[in-house]
Amino acid sequence: MKVRIFVTLKDGVLDPQGKAIHHALESLDFSGVNDVRAGKLIELDVDASVSRADIEKMCDKLLANTVIENYEIEIADAAQGTMG
Amino acid sequence: MKVRIFVTLKDGVLDPQGKAIHHALESLDFSGVNDVRAGKLIELDVDASVSRADIEKMCDKLLANTVIENYEIEIADAAQGTMG
Repeated sequence: MKVRIFVTLKDGVLDPQGKAIHHALESLDFSGVNDVRAGKLIELDVDASVSRADIEKMCDKLLANTVIENYEIEIADAAQGTMG
Repeated sequence: MKVRIFVTLKDGVLDPQGKAIHHALESLDFSGVNDVRAGKLIELDVDASVSRADIEKMCDKLLANTVIENYEIEIADAAQGTMG
């Protein structure tokens, strides 16, 4: 079972990495970008016996710093394709 | 317009960060995890005039290293809620 965890900084937390990306996009002449926030994507391949509650525990204990970060859990039934 | 870009390592590319997370989960007694891959999540807030082709250009030029990384673009019409 494939699980994707999106870890993002909470609103109001400074994001220097996102700022740097924003500046770099502007210096490459990409216009129309108002804001950039950088986060983490963690992909887990887990047994079917692992519940969403287990995954939330993993996030709370290790994968996200819930003081400054939010997380979202996406459980995919099948493997998803990627592009690029 | 909110855009999410998921940058993941291509299959076969070593992922020491993912390995470290996997070991840490095991040492915290989480079982049933077969594999962990770490990636990046980049959230953009862009004008409606920015097309998917523009965003692909941003990815190819700056946001992803397409030699070793894949990227996926997800364009959301409205802001998405987060949990945690």
